[in-house]
Amino acid sequence: MTDQTPMRGVLSPVVTPFDADLRPDADKLIRHCRWLLSHDCGLAIFGTNSEGNSLSVEEKIDLVDRLVDAGIDPARMMPGTGCCALPDTVKLSRHMTERGCGGVLMLPPFYYKGVSDEGIYRSIAEVIDRVGDDRLRVYLYHIPPVAQVGFSLDLIERLITDFPGIVAGIKDSSGDWDNTRAMIERFPGWGVFAGNETVLLKTMQAGGAGCISATCNVNAHGIVEFYKTWQAPNAEQRQADLTALRNKVGQYVMISALKATIAHYSGDMDWRRVRPPLVELDEATVAKLGAELEAYGFTMPGLAG
Amino acid sequence: MTDQTPMRGVLSPVVTPFDADLRPDADKLIRHCRWLLSHDCGLAIFGTNSEGNSLSVEEKIDLVDRLVDAGIDPARMMPGTGCCALPDTVKLSRHMTERGCGGVLMLPPFYYKGVSDEGIYRSIAEVIDRVGDDRLRVYLYHIPPVAQVGFSLDLIERLITDFPGIVAGIKDSSGDWDNTRAMIERFPGWGVFAGNETVLLKTMQAGGAGCISATCNVNAHGIVEFYKTWQAPNAEQRQADLTALRNKVGQYVMISALKATIAHYSGDMDWRRVRPPLVELDEATVAKLGAELEAYGFTMPGLAG
Repeated sequence: MTDQTPMRGVLSPVVTPFDADLRPDADKLIRHCRWLLSHDCGLAIFGTNSEGNSLSVEEKIDLVDRLVDAGIDPARMMPGTGCCALPDTVKLSRHMTERGCGGVLMLPPFYYKGVSDEGIYRSIAEVIDRVGDDRLRVYLYHIPPVAQVGFSLDLIERLITDFPGIVAGIKDSSGDWDNTRAMIERFPGWGVFAGNETVLLKTMQAGGAGCISATCNVNAHGIVEFYKTWQAPNAEQRQADLTALRNKVGQYVMISALKATIAHYSGDMDWRRVRPPLVELDEATVAKLGAELEAYGFTMPGLAG
Repeated sequence: MTDQTPMRGVLSPVVTPFDADLRPDADKLIRHCRWLLSHDCGLAIFGTNSEGNSLSVEEKIDLVDRLVDAGIDPARMMPGTGCCALPDTVKLSRHMTERGCGGVLMLPPFYYKGVSDEGIYRSIAEVIDRVGDDRLRVYLYHIPPVAQVGFSLDLIERLITDFPGIVAGIKDSSGDWDNTRAMIERFPGWGVFAGNETVLLKTMQAGGAGCISATCNVNAHGIVEFYKTWQAPNAEQRQADLTALRNKVGQYVMISALKATIAHYSGDMDWRRVRPPLVELDEATVAKLGAELEAYGFTMPGLAG
């Protein structure tokens, strides 16, 4: 195992812009990543809110190559690599590691439901063995509301024990704070990321690693600033403000609303595009959401579009 | 639209054999397909019970090429092509159509949950438009217990209306007979396949197209024979016998149990292998299941192994 600093802080599952033919728009993605990094927000590309599983393996490899070749620091990237098919997860995880990514965010195979911990263990272990690269850092992706399949505490312990250092953390998108707290308490010092910023204060107070949140795509500045100053006064009120902002965006389907918000603040309505099975917000709804966010005083400083 | 006979009858989601490195074993798959065809059972390769979503796009393309090149009739094939990512579904559906497959069995994109009918409609419509081949025949794959995402009756009607002939049928694996009956009644003459043989008699009585059932991998002869003679006397008892046999296999995780049954009757324990997140049955359990099936008088006539 090589010495590689564990990833900490705030990361955004970076939304993926599409062109008129629904192909990924790499140049626009590069610009959005630069905006996120300008606010010191890490890049969890190809996550749920990136429509990561709506992209082919080849598209993801091409996009990460475009990003790294454009000078975006791969150490700040935690690309999603967990697919249904073992060879796909291996191929992506190997490529991301070879390109220098700080870690990968790994869904369990999510097609079959009700699978055993033993089966999920083998899924992750096979990937690690087949990638066979000491630089690999796996952050488990626990999101039962979407993937249905997830990681129990006992399974996590087995993985940490068998692959120390390699299995470096988890994103807990269970939506269950008790579960996040249990992870932090059972695995002290390990990299437990909250699934969104509504529990960022509690996560940091308990000893967690930060958060990986959809809303960073629009509020990177607010969330990162709070992460850096959560021990300063008035933390409860600032946490409440973050949560209120998230809830305004989250009144719509999250991915469509994130893209709509970027479309509104950049003036580029093409940003609204999503791949099916998602549906974009219409322009009237974008205007309504935008007006509501502006009335709340929300801005996206430095956004180039 | 070209004149292409709609698929009818009994098809098996063909289980996929793996070698010691968990690569698909094409030669063994070819032998199993020949066994199924020898009993006049169609080939729904790459279905749920085929571990279809545990195979990469490249593996599926390679396997179908191997099958067709080996002389297996593609008109009897209904490969699964529905993936999470639009370009993957397009690529697979196009390839299967070009190779002459009788149809494709199309899951909706299944990562995101709670998506709208409009979003699922766009998913299927985009694939049909992008494949752009009059020979394409889409059989929708409705399996909410696994995919979670499925096809409502109104959505099916919209797809049939907009793509007449192309959207040629459905496999209803909802496990809800009322839903299967509702499909048959609302779309008379359309290709509604039951998701398993336990409702095959009711499906045929109501005017359905047949069934696509996991158990065909071991009981193709029994299920096809019943399909061909369901109007003969004693149908209720014969249906009950089929159901009883299925329940014996289904007391274990179905895919592992199917492979275990083939392993037992062929004497080839390598048949047990599954890809994670599934777990194979151990040899003692294989022997126990095999003994139980033999005591029931079950055989697999003509199985080469």
